[in-house]
Amino acid sequence: MTKKSAEELVAASGAWWDTSIIDIHPGEIAIRGYPIEQLIGRFRFPEMIWLMLRGELPARAQADLLEAALVAGVDHGPHAPSIAIARMAVTCGLPVNGAMASAINVLDDVHGGAGQQCMQLYREIDAEAGPGGDLVRAAQTVLARRREGGEKMVPGFGHRFHPVDPRTAPLFELVAKAVAAGAVTGRYAGIGHAVEQALGTAKKRHIPMNIDGITAVIFSELGFEPELGRGLFVLSRAVGILSHAWEQKQRGGRIMGPMPREIPYRYSGAARRNVPPPGVEPDVPSPARSER
Amino acid sequence: MTKKSAEELVAASGAWWDTSIIDIHPGEIAIRGYPIEQLIGRFRFPEMIWLMLRGELPARAQADLLEAALVAGVDHGPHAPSIAIARMAVTCGLPVNGAMASAINVLDDVHGGAGQQCMQLYREIDAEAGPGGDLVRAAQTVLARRREGGEKMVPGFGHRFHPVDPRTAPLFELVAKAVAAGAVTGRYAGIGHAVEQALGTAKKRHIPMNIDGITAVIFSELGFEPELGRGLFVLSRAVGILSHAWEQKQRGGRIMGPMPREIPYRYSGAARRNVPPPGVEPDVPSPARSER
Amino acid sequence: MTKKSAEELVAASGAWWDTSIIDIHPGEIAIRGYPIEQLIGRFRFPEMIWLMLRGELPARAQADLLEAALVAGVDHGPHAPSIAIARMAVTCGLPVNGAMASAINVLDDVHGGAGQQCMQLYREIDAEAGPGGDLVRAAQTVLARRREGGEKMVPGFGHRFHPVDPRTAPLFELVAKAVAAGAVTGRYAGIGHAVEQALGTAKKRHIPMNIDGITAVIFSELGFEPELGRGLFVLSRAVGILSHAWEQKQRGGRIMGPMPREIPYRYSGAARRNVPPPGVEPDVPSPARSER
Amino acid sequence: MTKKSAEELVAASGAWWDTSIIDIHPGEIAIRGYPIEQLIGRFRFPEMIWLMLRGELPARAQADLLEAALVAGVDHGPHAPSIAIARMAVTCGLPVNGAMASAINVLDDVHGGAGQQCMQLYREIDAEAGPGGDLVRAAQTVLARRREGGEKMVPGFGHRFHPVDPRTAPLFELVAKAVAAGAVTGRYAGIGHAVEQALGTAKKRHIPMNIDGITAVIFSELGFEPELGRGLFVLSRAVGILSHAWEQKQRGGRIMGPMPREIPYRYSGAARRNVPPPGVEPDVPSPARSER
Repeated sequence: MTKKSAEELVAASGAWWDTSIIDIHPGEIAIRGYPIEQLIGRFRFPEMIWLMLRGELPARAQADLLEAALVAGVDHGPHAPSIAIARMAVTCGLPVNGAMASAINVLDDVHGGAGQQCMQLYREIDAEAGPGGDLVRAAQTVLARRREGGEKMVPGFGHRFHPVDPRTAPLFELVAKAVAAGAVTGRYAGIGHAVEQALGTAKKRHIPMNIDGITAVIFSELGFEPELGRGLFVLSRAVGILSHAWEQKQRGGRIMGPMPREIPYRYSGAARRNVPPPGVEPDVPSPARSER
Repeated sequence: MTKKSAEELVAASGAWWDTSIIDIHPGEIAIRGYPIEQLIGRFRFPEMIWLMLRGELPARAQADLLEAALVAGVDHGPHAPSIAIARMAVTCGLPVNGAMASAINVLDDVHGGAGQQCMQLYREIDAEAGPGGDLVRAAQTVLARRREGGEKMVPGFGHRFHPVDPRTAPLFELVAKAVAAGAVTGRYAGIGHAVEQALGTAKKRHIPMNIDGITAVIFSELGFEPELGRGLFVLSRAVGILSHAWEQKQRGGRIMGPMPREIPYRYSGAARRNVPPPGVEPDVPSPARSER
Repeated sequence: MTKKSAEELVAASGAWWDTSIIDIHPGEIAIRGYPIEQLIGRFRFPEMIWLMLRGELPARAQADLLEAALVAGVDHGPHAPSIAIARMAVTCGLPVNGAMASAINVLDDVHGGAGQQCMQLYREIDAEAGPGGDLVRAAQTVLARRREGGEKMVPGFGHRFHPVDPRTAPLFELVAKAVAAGAVTGRYAGIGHAVEQALGTAKKRHIPMNIDGITAVIFSELGFEPELGRGLFVLSRAVGILSHAWEQKQRGGRIMGPMPREIPYRYSGAARRNVPPPGVEPDVPSPARSER
Repeated sequence: MTKKSAEELVAASGAWWDTSIIDIHPGEIAIRGYPIEQLIGRFRFPEMIWLMLRGELPARAQADLLEAALVAGVDHGPHAPSIAIARMAVTCGLPVNGAMASAINVLDDVHGGAGQQCMQLYREIDAEAGPGGDLVRAAQTVLARRREGGEKMVPGFGHRFHPVDPRTAPLFELVAKAVAAGAVTGRYAGIGHAVEQALGTAKKRHIPMNIDGITAVIFSELGFEPELGRGLFVLSRAVGILSHAWEQKQRGGRIMGPMPREIPYRYSGAARRNVPPPGVEPDVPSPARSER
């Protein structure tokens, strides 16, 4: 590596933290080029979220659709690990930021990734169908391919709790309105319906679209990348996480575990035993026998 | 502890996770008593945030004020540790939820607690003044008391970067409008101004209210508890954290540290030395001399 | 601020990340001045922990005592929130590092801070007694003062689960041995016993020292600062957190909440209600009536 | 779902948190069947780590090897994102547990997963060679297959900083000793060497094994699963993370970003612009043109 001059190093340092999102100078803040004082009071929170993530302001109808999806996903109660963790965390002494961190962290591939995975599924079907292709057939092809690849679950469809997710229909209506208004094309709504139809045929029963499936429709219609589907869900669920952390904080409680101590957990390990006498090594499988 | 019956234990388990926020049954979700399908598409995201945190829906003008504060605080650029951490985190392999967790976690007392502390300051002045008391005098009394108590900083006032925070004036205007419309009383706006005046007199120069000070005014006017001031800030800043994590993710980078490797960090520790020869114990201060 | 030259800025960047812990150059790593290759294979993990935290190598007997404390605190089972969180986290898709992060985070003031608080208590008694003062009397004075100050719990003493903590006696024996060998002074062992005696007199029953109380004795005898008491506990408990995360990972499970879904949580909120009709604002308390 | 009785629900609750690691009763703690009081003072911290993770106590020579690997990986200085994050975190107000959480979280696939990935590589070569097969040829086959599959990096080999990693040779010597003593078979040491040889031939230059490569050898020799390779690395690096958090805490600093504020970050976004006039919608790409 050739030695850089001090000027080059300072420039490299600045470039290391290059961003196109925000420009700050003393007394001046611009978001995506817009002075912050022009945004405050004029634009709504979902519009600001859009501007930050996408670089441009959305149309009003697009922001409305995004907002509805954000409203729909805020909470799923204490059986959701993220919510339970937030409540336990404050009883361990954490302030709300810390409780939110421990909780948001678990919105990972399984707990928070279904929407993102569903967006990827929709894209695959979009590509499979191509322009003008039959969406149901494309959905069938893609689902069959995934089943053969060993995938057992279709992200965004079915629910282990709700026979029908009460959030799906009202969100779908809003998508239909946005299509009618020309705000979105309806391509992904069509794909979502196609998946539902393909699944019904394959499984011989109706497997309804859940909240992840319909928000994946919305975020796809609005042109978000799949990983941002997860990100937007985190912004939405953060509200529920904060609310439960706060409710628990007001109620008190110290070091609250997952259930009352009176209910013993089950121990299924080795029976009580003594350590080997001093000087005697524990009995260890010889390395020739793989310990794998 | 008396032995409980199985029925009592099951009830205790349910009570362990008692909440007044959300009621869920198969096919049914109600937030604070409202069926979710009545909320979706009708209410805005800030209204949902309010409902979740407070238990009731806000007036439109209250939601507007809350929304403006949420819009104002989304980002403060890569010099903010939370933003830098989010960007570094994705280069270590974390998905956006994980990057957000590591970043939101550091919005603690110092980085994210100024708004909360400022709300506590306002409350103290509110109590000091009592109904009808002079706010500037109360502010002076409280600030003097705190200075005597060793506090050097007044949360919510002054900024190490912005001579004047460009977000303060537009937010103050919105508070004034809300006061005029009868949506809030203006009590905390008055207290905020009183602090500014008291500080100017004490320090012989203008120490302007910053973003924490004005959002503390807004959250206090809206009746939020101080800890929720921090929580609302986290919801707002989560947007910037996600946006920077996403921008960095698109750009790539692997294991990005705080500066280019070409810039060496300074080592100020012990000079190079050898461990003691085998069998020789390191030279350890005798315990009689305190190691504290 | 005067403008710095590029050279000064590069130096400032390096100084920003100044450390006395580790010096790294291509092909060379030195910890506290010692070449890493001299440490590997020669020194034990607790000795390395000590060197990293304290800057010097410990005597063998000191390392032994530290090691025993690290061994004693690794786990407290699934009723501990940190352990439960680790297990839930992996069922949400997190790898072990992420599960450990969410779990370690909650080892905060209440769940993980008792040892640290107990070390501070011991120091206060140490200062109160002064050299040659009566420790039991000093303990009584300090405890009385704290009770008057509103503190209800004595950190490190009593246990809501164990009548006698099985870890205390063997650790105390090791302290006694170390005192006999001249490795530590025994000052804090004496203070710990004094607290036990003072508590017994005050409460008219034996309130035994728990794991936090005895590890606080050990860490204090070894000259660690109170906050490191918490840090060392985190290093120890990290082992249990990892072990439970790993056990859960092997068993599978998806989005595991705190209890089986068949056990409903209790809802104690507003009764089912309808949102106000379109165009009608929700009924909001007038701002004149404080919402606090 | 058939309704369960209260007794069945309580049992299901206990089973939900089933573990084979720890059994706790009032006054009694057993780890993997061993009473905790028999473990304290008798067994070393690495032996406890092994017992917790594996279910059985290791042979002394196995524990020695594990210990050397734990010692070797504690720190890589402030250029490592995990270390930088820990230091920044404490200046935001976090206690050490919180700083450790934010930092450990980023030991993810890229920053902390190389050892795990290297263990998987070794296993693939082990399977490819089969009993008695030529290891170098197997390594060549596997590496070629991975290159064809698009993988550009070989986890555990090469270092962007160290021409030769000073930790590799002393650790390799300890493996050799353990092989000589019959504590491990040497299979994975052989595989590690084979990879080095295969890489040297393919790349026409020596690409040395780094710390991830040699610890992967050790953990594999000791029979750990790949994901535990990552977990053990986290336990080791946690020491450096704590040490840097603590050093920074003692030095103070408030809201420390990645570089001094005097060095501006580079802004590369939209030029300064005005929001559209009131009542005018932003210019949004029509949905017909994909926004993807």
